[in-house]
Amino acid sequence: MANRLAVIGGDAGGMSAATQARRLDPSLEIVAFEKTEWTSYSACGIPYLVSGEIGTLEQLVARSPQEHRDQSHIDVRIHHEVMGVDLPGGRLEVRDHVRGRTIQVPFDMLLLGMGARPIRPDLPGIDLPIVHGVQTLHDAAQLLRYAERSRCSDVVVVGGGYIGLELAEAFIEREARVMVVERDPHVMSTLDGDMAALIEESMRKLGIELRLNTEIIGFDEDAVVTRDGRISADLVIVGIGVEPNSELARDAGIELGVRRSVRVDRRQRTSAPNVWAAGDCVESFHLVSHRPVYVALGTIANRHGRVAGINIGGGYAAFPGIVGTAVTRICATEVGRTGLNEREARDAGFEFVTAIVDSTTTASYFQHAQKITVKLLAERRSGRIIGAQIVGGRGAGKRIDVAAAAITAGMDAGQLVDLDFGYAPPVSPLWDPIASTARVILSDL
Amino acid sequence: MANRLAVIGGDAGGMSAATQARRLDPSLEIVAFEKTEWTSYSACGIPYLVSGEIGTLEQLVARSPQEHRDQSHIDVRIHHEVMGVDLPGGRLEVRDHVRGRTIQVPFDMLLLGMGARPIRPDLPGIDLPIVHGVQTLHDAAQLLRYAERSRCSDVVVVGGGYIGLELAEAFIEREARVMVVERDPHVMSTLDGDMAALIEESMRKLGIELRLNTEIIGFDEDAVVTRDGRISADLVIVGIGVEPNSELARDAGIELGVRRSVRVDRRQRTSAPNVWAAGDCVESFHLVSHRPVYVALGTIANRHGRVAGINIGGGYAAFPGIVGTAVTRICATEVGRTGLNEREARDAGFEFVTAIVDSTTTASYFQHAQKITVKLLAERRSGRIIGAQIVGGRGAGKRIDVAAAAITAGMDAGQLVDLDFGYAPPVSPLWDPIASTARVILSDL
Repeated sequence: MANRLAVIGGDAGGMSAATQARRLDPSLEIVAFEKTEWTSYSACGIPYLVSGEIGTLEQLVARSPQEHRDQSHIDVRIHHEVMGVDLPGGRLEVRDHVRGRTIQVPFDMLLLGMGARPIRPDLPGIDLPIVHGVQTLHDAAQLLRYAERSRCSDVVVVGGGYIGLELAEAFIEREARVMVVERDPHVMSTLDGDMAALIEESMRKLGIELRLNTEIIGFDEDAVVTRDGRISADLVIVGIGVEPNSELARDAGIELGVRRSVRVDRRQRTSAPNVWAAGDCVESFHLVSHRPVYVALGTIANRHGRVAGINIGGGYAAFPGIVGTAVTRICATEVGRTGLNEREARDAGFEFVTAIVDSTTTASYFQHAQKITVKLLAERRSGRIIGAQIVGGRGAGKRIDVAAAAITAGMDAGQLVDLDFGYAPPVSPLWDPIASTARVILSDL
Repeated sequence: MANRLAVIGGDAGGMSAATQARRLDPSLEIVAFEKTEWTSYSACGIPYLVSGEIGTLEQLVARSPQEHRDQSHIDVRIHHEVMGVDLPGGRLEVRDHVRGRTIQVPFDMLLLGMGARPIRPDLPGIDLPIVHGVQTLHDAAQLLRYAERSRCSDVVVVGGGYIGLELAEAFIEREARVMVVERDPHVMSTLDGDMAALIEESMRKLGIELRLNTEIIGFDEDAVVTRDGRISADLVIVGIGVEPNSELARDAGIELGVRRSVRVDRRQRTSAPNVWAAGDCVESFHLVSHRPVYVALGTIANRHGRVAGINIGGGYAAFPGIVGTAVTRICATEVGRTGLNEREARDAGFEFVTAIVDSTTTASYFQHAQKITVKLLAERRSGRIIGAQIVGGRGAGKRIDVAAAAITAGMDAGQLVDLDFGYAPPVSPLWDPIASTARVILSDL
């Protein structure tokens, strides 16, 4: 009889593992449970759905349940919610929301891919209908329906992280008045303040109002209540980060790690035999800080899933760890970051020097030249690059990948100066902006 | 008495060395001889001057002779041509074209930065006025004057290299009929044929006519003569590569290397004591083939110059070698290459596998998504990445830098799959195009 793999969660982590396992082991029986109707979708695309840059929700679905069934012979059950994991019995308790019944599903191997949910602060009014969180396509559908039904002329975004800022911009595209309320002195806590200030500048240019250093204490039916007074709103989006859906694992006695995410070994195995985990419910290892970190990103979820799937399918793969790369585009400004920012570097115990250099995306004399600002952090003494941040015009964001490669390879500032960067006037200044910044670091060391 | 450094050539190699030396040694006396009126200019910008994307020749000058005098106290003498190097006597023979006299200039240290010149094939009619080569701003000024004086409705570009193709596009912008004649089966010999074919496609779309496998046998007053007949032309640009201006070095008994470029050690020292060399007249070391190579590019010239200048100024720097990175934009298509192409990899003795993967510059569902094609070469057995080529839409070209970093660091295909690439729908698909290609390589290995 074939082994049965059960997968909890039909998005990136779960389905990339399932697909990869199928490739290696055609005899494996694979069943996947997804509580919504969607599988393998791009949650990262939701802001662009709101802005109208993407036409339909369906475009965000990389692989539908039917495609998974047809192409990979995975028995995908949508509207099925796993309620409990019985490890000793090797069984899942699954609620079938369509038929309104609960079933018991035996498994030989289990993949945890429950993902994450938006953090909902425990504040008065958090459950009012104007308050939304956005993580799943289900959330997106609700938000779109709400936005179409209501006027949504006053949108307040609580929290200045990636998804919050992307949605702020999206509602500007929908001609709303948009305010972002952030508790800290700057938006984008993954960047240092000096770099985040550049984003704030471009947000204000687009007409987004910013309230920094402002704490929310509750929500009304038509307002956000802060320590400094009420801000009227007909739509509130809370984007203060996500937390792992790890309760099923915890209740089954599986070990949790940083921020209650599921702890895994190099092969994505949890503390329980024959149980793997992948995606936004799982911790990762940071190659620079040498610490476990919780980072919920689609890229990492897919890479977790690939590794878990290879191992489940009988192959061998080890997850190499991350360096914390992230990019986005906020108001025509692109942002990239990798490695550690100043706070993270201090927390990890590093002494370091920093340099910030303004340059241009193309040769400065070129008519399309746009500003690009690069910040580098290098360890004192060794000169090893431990962090990079980029803010700039079109094409600036993805240049962070070069820094990610350099950090992964353990390059020092001198090696980055010496790197054989490509140059042509329409795409770069003669000294690449990253190399220019490394030169300043080198002279400071 | 101060030491005197004499510099032959006022462009990238010479002046970056001089500027760097000045920073380290304020007491150094520095005199630089430049036979034209221009210093420190971007020859790479010439095609965009022709196309009108850059307004004036002066914009291409990063630092004028007067700026070098004022900011770095370098005694720059324009219209001064060095005619001979007397090493035993420590003297240069210099022709002052302004005053029409020849002077003797003593030196303690010498920097050779004579640059390169377009190769002029030994063919009948090569000296006719319609035939132009483009390397210096002087050439550019002549070409622009000629193009403005004549009709230039029929432009023939001989040679499908970077500068040739960039100029072909520039003349299309000037509404000329443009034909590119190439001896080989494909343009862009630095790419493999399968990737070059993608460039050819976008050139044809823009209306550039291509004659491949076509050998030129001479020039008439109003035509290019090929083995297959005459092609009428009122302007011919010969862009079949450049060769080093190394005769002064050769005549002084200084050792030459590959393709008669000046041979240097790790610190940019020539075979003669106290004589350094930098830029387009100098050979480099290729980190993948482990061979000396002759590559005439502004980035390398500046890096040569920086290393030479640090050493001349009493510091220590070693040139680390190159991996052969180059980027350009041809007809809205961006091109990047690094490492070895198939021919170069075979020449160097490698056995290798290749993969070509089509992807998109953004998430595929994004409205601005443009095609990007990545080719990777990996050494058999080790899986080490030894070459990369990218052809694609806006933003595609500079992504080659990630491959350059990976190749420099000796990463294998698995490490490239595992690299923590940045992702956001407006700037990348979930699996970065380079990582996707590395995945295919990995499964082929």
